[in-house]
Amino acid sequence: MGSQDVKLVRFWVSPYSKRVEWALKLKGVDYEYIEEDIFNKSNLLLELNPVHKKVPVLIHGKKSIAESLIILEYIDETWKQYPLMPLHPYERSRARFWADFGEQKLLHTAFVAMCSSGEGKDKAVKLAREAIEKIEEEIKGKKFFGGDNIGYLDLALGWISYWLPVFEEVGSMKIIDPLICSTITAWMPNFLSHPVIKENLTPRDNMLVYFHSRRKTLLGAFHV
Amino acid sequence: MGSQDVKLVRFWVSPYSKRVEWALKLKGVDYEYIEEDIFNKSNLLLELNPVHKKVPVLIHGKKSIAESLIILEYIDETWKQYPLMPLHPYERSRARFWADFGEQKLLHTAFVAMCSSGEGKDKAVKLAREAIEKIEEEIKGKKFFGGDNIGYLDLALGWISYWLPVFEEVGSMKIIDPLICSTITAWMPNFLSHPVIKENLTPRDNMLVYFHSRRKTLLGAFHV
Repeated sequence: MGSQDVKLVRFWVSPYSKRVEWALKLKGVDYEYIEEDIFNKSNLLLELNPVHKKVPVLIHGKKSIAESLIILEYIDETWKQYPLMPLHPYERSRARFWADFGEQKLLHTAFVAMCSSGEGKDKAVKLAREAIEKIEEEIKGKKFFGGDNIGYLDLALGWISYWLPVFEEVGSMKIIDPLICSTITAWMPNFLSHPVIKENLTPRDNMLVYFHSRRKTLLGAFHV
Repeated sequence: MGSQDVKLVRFWVSPYSKRVEWALKLKGVDYEYIEEDIFNKSNLLLELNPVHKKVPVLIHGKKSIAESLIILEYIDETWKQYPLMPLHPYERSRARFWADFGEQKLLHTAFVAMCSSGEGKDKAVKLAREAIEKIEEEIKGKKFFGGDNIGYLDLALGWISYWLPVFEEVGSMKIIDPLICSTITAWMPNFLSHPVIKENLTPRDNMLVYFHSRRKTLLGAFHV
């Protein structure tokens, strides 16, 4: 697979982009990346993803695929090495359920909490805590969400290990309680110490600068 | 497959429930249904779907699966007859993309439009029209979203053929313009005349009564 066949339109600090990069690296698929300025969107992005106009977009030959969780399934179905999805239909349905849950109920909520103050923030923090406690139930008794190895759901929720602590710091708030979320707290360093994950992380200091700036711009703009 | 193995917790007028029923019928899977009162939720529903507390829930043996689009994939992976998803990873990603798009950008928006008035309604109607015009682009040149036969995406978007005209009538609004959405307009009677779909529709008069009542209760409660 020549690298010219696979390209990823990404934004450096996007957790949605990063999960796709992790998947490609785990599979050993060579790719080129095209850095997108999401504040001044390129014609390429608007052409590739006219519906949502969002990163990431995977370009494979002449085809383009949008929406990061859908891209993960595409990657898993296209390159069979290092399978990401479980084999059994029931386990697959669980993985999809919790990936979607993390997206709807935790990622959005934690971001809103970071960019809020007062009662709005209290509400968002409460919802985010409730969400992560539900995710804790799903991983309990396992090393990774995928079982013994990193799988689709680890990639979908991988941002919890690295972005969420940044959100907590920037928003001066606590969402992950290690006493309640003990399995997630143990999973975080396990996930982050995997060679492919460790070598493909955005520098934390740069993230802090970026999200402090986003918080300032967006303060009070969103609600849950 | 004895009917005791498969049960569906559903609500009679829910488009989310109906797409799962259609899938089971197309596959020829026997099932029992358990009617849920979503306004007075049963302990069974709260136990089976404690996270979202929503219908439909598919019970297969001792396992339960929630979220209708995830259930469709589970059904397709479990019972191989009458395949619903396309075979090629790219086509599969397209089907998932548009199923999700229909959910996020059209179903919710059209429901809000029905339950709104004034400027809020105008905005929701406009967004719903833009969404269905994008869906029109996806089906152009095909008989069904699945190609020559009804597939996953036809089931996911099947509510457009039957629920959306009810929403239009109840909300005194027009979302589907037959001149712009000519392929969808041709698809609607094709989809509805398939024996499995035709024999598994909720009576329209009952739907009108139900959604008129919902509109009255929810008027102004939602925004897009």
